[in-house]
Amino acid sequence: MILVGNCIVAQSGGPTSVINSSLCGVIQEALKHKEITGIYGARNGILGIINDNLVDLGKEDPIEVEFLKNTPSSILGSCRYKLKAPGEGEDYNKILATFKKYNIRYFFYIGGNDSMDTADKLNKFINDSGHEIKIIGIPKTIDNDLVETDHCPGFGSAAKFIATSLSEIYKDATVYPSDQITIIEIMGRNAGWLTAASAIPTLTGEGPDLVYVPEVPFHYDHFKEEVSRIQSKKGDVVICASEGIKDVNGIYVAQNETLQCHDSFGHAQLGGVAGALKSMVANLGKKIRVIEFSLLQRCSAHIASATDVEEAYQVGVKAIQSAIEGKSGYMVTILREKQEPYVSSYGLAPLSNIANHEKKIPREWINDEGHGVKREVLDYILPLIKGRSEYKEDSLGLPRCSKLKMLSLK
Amino acid sequence: MILVGNCIVAQSGGPTSVINSSLCGVIQEALKHKEITGIYGARNGILGIINDNLVDLGKEDPIEVEFLKNTPSSILGSCRYKLKAPGEGEDYNKILATFKKYNIRYFFYIGGNDSMDTADKLNKFINDSGHEIKIIGIPKTIDNDLVETDHCPGFGSAAKFIATSLSEIYKDATVYPSDQITIIEIMGRNAGWLTAASAIPTLTGEGPDLVYVPEVPFHYDHFKEEVSRIQSKKGDVVICASEGIKDVNGIYVAQNETLQCHDSFGHAQLGGVAGALKSMVANLGKKIRVIEFSLLQRCSAHIASATDVEEAYQVGVKAIQSAIEGKSGYMVTILREKQEPYVSSYGLAPLSNIANHEKKIPREWINDEGHGVKREVLDYILPLIKGRSEYKEDSLGLPRCSKLKMLSLK
Repeated sequence: MILVGNCIVAQSGGPTSVINSSLCGVIQEALKHKEITGIYGARNGILGIINDNLVDLGKEDPIEVEFLKNTPSSILGSCRYKLKAPGEGEDYNKILATFKKYNIRYFFYIGGNDSMDTADKLNKFINDSGHEIKIIGIPKTIDNDLVETDHCPGFGSAAKFIATSLSEIYKDATVYPSDQITIIEIMGRNAGWLTAASAIPTLTGEGPDLVYVPEVPFHYDHFKEEVSRIQSKKGDVVICASEGIKDVNGIYVAQNETLQCHDSFGHAQLGGVAGALKSMVANLGKKIRVIEFSLLQRCSAHIASATDVEEAYQVGVKAIQSAIEGKSGYMVTILREKQEPYVSSYGLAPLSNIANHEKKIPREWINDEGHGVKREVLDYILPLIKGRSEYKEDSLGLPRCSKLKMLSLK
Repeated sequence: MILVGNCIVAQSGGPTSVINSSLCGVIQEALKHKEITGIYGARNGILGIINDNLVDLGKEDPIEVEFLKNTPSSILGSCRYKLKAPGEGEDYNKILATFKKYNIRYFFYIGGNDSMDTADKLNKFINDSGHEIKIIGIPKTIDNDLVETDHCPGFGSAAKFIATSLSEIYKDATVYPSDQITIIEIMGRNAGWLTAASAIPTLTGEGPDLVYVPEVPFHYDHFKEEVSRIQSKKGDVVICASEGIKDVNGIYVAQNETLQCHDSFGHAQLGGVAGALKSMVANLGKKIRVIEFSLLQRCSAHIASATDVEEAYQVGVKAIQSAIEGKSGYMVTILREKQEPYVSSYGLAPLSNIANHEKKIPREWINDEGHGVKREVLDYILPLIKGRSEYKEDSLGLPRCSKLKMLSLK
């Protein structure tokens, strides 16, 4: 039986450079299928469905939809909102009311771990509600920590920004005859994939000397010894560290109060991991520079990976195709078919397998000392950062991004 | 009389994305003139001449020389070294010894304010030494604060990085329904040109709400009022501030001890201007994110301005041509011939007019309230950020940069 009706697509969690490319894939593919009669977007993720805040994406100019491919951030708005257990609380009834009100038969949720949890709960609830709807998750996270998929859209572009910036920072940070310590903080609370990408320029001979990921415990003494050793050997030291590295007791380095600043009331001001590492080597008496990539690593679409933009688009396409085929309760996955030349394909995995799991770097891909990564992880990342995403410049010299009308359904 | 001999080129001060493009212009143009017999590079600026640390740039592969156009940072190394008054101290004799030893008849110094001071002093000393040599300064600074020139090579690319990043950050920082304050710190100790560039995306409707430059005094109370006002009007607030803003008493905001963190010994840890501004609005109870562009703004050659890369090249060319014509004691300048379509030409100004002066944003280009810039300064900047610099990617997906052999003359 063919299910005919409208669809909702929404974006959730931290934005990426290519999450709108997935939205573009959803819209352009949905337009090809007669089963989907209207294409609606929910503002601010699941909140837009709970609060009946929808826009009509079918009324957008196709040219502006195409520009979504290189428009960073979540153009529909995002949220960080956790649903209670399936059926618990008022949210589910509100969601169901919106689905019924607008005859929604397909729902696509673009997001990471928490968003797949939301999609999974909704799928479990809806199965008992009597309202037939197909729910498909579309992966998105710069952290690359979703299981069941070879990698995640958004990661390749963030990794390309980090690898490119490190190749540039290294050249800058080693330019003076005076020795300098440069400490770079990279996103990744529990998984070090992004920080591992910082090591790619080492393959050209110009990259970080030390790389710390959250997968292995951080040793304060070893760190100080390593910095001293490298300093006496080559002068400048460039260090990359995940925001989420923890010491042997499982305490976040960024939350080590003795390494932090205190405000006028004596409260520790968590200055991040780079600030803490700076405190540790301050006594070496050299100039120390701290760099946090912050939002830049997830929104710098101007240096997006062409491979990532394309894969983000294709997971959107695959989601539509899978739902039309009658699949529900799955997330689209990426399969690495071939490493060289790189070829990928797309599959499905049950949402329940994905929600609340995290994929980390295998221990054997990190060096024994825990201060660097091995060639295996770089080989894994390299195909994902390939190619410069093409974009047009506007009359100001800025990237020309999508301008949607966002016509409200109400 | 035609002066025939070898030349030295050196780089000094903070690196930029295009300082190597000027080096490329010097090398490629020098190769065309029979008056210049050998092209040598000094390592780490004037220190390389003092310490007889030279490399033979004439022996470099022309393909690698061409790649200098998109290679960030100072490939010859840099320094921050101040010469004493002309003739004072041993440095001058060492420099003269190097010039005589290698029959140096032309010297080109690529740098900013301090470097022009060095070139000026050297020019004054050398005139009395009996060793004939032509000295030409080549402008370089992301700060855009050199007088006598319409603008400075290096500025356009840094401005393009800042304007592009702000257009991207704005989209990311406004994505959640919860209000957020985002504070971005931009380089510029006394001149606010780079910070002004952050306002370019406001012309698309998506840019910073408040922009603070060092040219006008910063009022703490006004700042807090403005943030509250914008917050109640539109929720999210995006703020850009120069590192060098000062309060009405002339005290750097970044050095206001009451706004700073203190280490375990109670010493104020200067956290920069963004950290200080964060302290001021912490009581508004919203999520606050601080971003410092740090080195990225001066080394992100992957988003260099095509206009800037070309002008940086041409000031190198002009330096060679001027020296061959017998000029000495000048810096190359850029003249804005036409605004639309933008056309520039190149001239000369005496080094002594430039050393130890700073060009700032005219007061009338900053709004009356001192929390934003006017259209005039944006119109001034816009032509300078135009065009994407083309570069090749290497097999890793990173920008393919120049690899020089750097053969020592010793």
